[in-house]
Amino acid sequence: MAGRAEASRVYEDDKVLAFMDIRPMTRGHLLVIPKTHATNLAELDPELAGPIFATAQRLAAAVRRSPLQPEGVNLFLADGAAAGQEVFHVHLHVLPRLVGDGFGLRGSFSWPHRMALDAQAVQIRAALVT
Amino acid sequence: MAGRAEASRVYEDDKVLAFMDIRPMTRGHLLVIPKTHATNLAELDPELAGPIFATAQRLAAAVRRSPLQPEGVNLFLADGAAAGQEVFHVHLHVLPRLVGDGFGLRGSFSWPHRMALDAQAVQIRAALVT
Repeated sequence: MAGRAEASRVYEDDKVLAFMDIRPMTRGHLLVIPKTHATNLAELDPELAGPIFATAQRLAAAVRRSPLQPEGVNLFLADGAAAGQEVFHVHLHVLPRLVGDGFGLRGSFSWPHRMALDAQAVQIRAALVT
Repeated sequence: MAGRAEASRVYEDDKVLAFMDIRPMTRGHLLVIPKTHATNLAELDPELAGPIFATAQRLAAAVRRSPLQPEGVNLFLADGAAAGQEVFHVHLHVLPRLVGDGFGLRGSFSWPHRMALDAQAVQIRAALVT
């Protein structure tokens, strides 16, 4: 996201900006950012959630219609250094996918007991600000 | 997402539902889904983009405040089988993160020439429905 001045812009309106990632993980890798600075999700005005996600949705449709012809699309967001965030302005990745492109998630699944999941649900629900 | 009847629910309103993933990749792994069926992003009513993303944002804040105490959060969405989509009802993953938890992205970066990025931007922009 460095060098925004010379970014390869794809979309812009009063709230968001979308441009090519200069260090793509897949061909056609895009970033959607809010124009108002927000370091992370905690700072992001919830009113911008819709514009950001709807823009990613529109870009996913556009890249599917474009000559890049991806077979799928991933959306990814990293909130915090522990989650892999490197640029501290909220950005949503739009990653066009091709079978065999080498991109994906790293990690493994677990199968917790329903009681463990219920206990976590109670803890998270209790922490929701309503 | 099978067995929704016995899901460990965390949040629900008229538009979205959030519950614990029964096959978590990290501790506290949540899913946010629209209540109206949409197989993929192309079928998703753009009016639901805001509720889905804003709910994920609120859940990220809640899980950070909860006893699960993650150090970061990732959001992830797979659109299409080639992107890893396995359940064909749109769902946004909320993945609490801890340093060293083994979760992350697989793949590598490239550094295309600005002219290549500009050419892709032109192609995607031309395919945007305005």
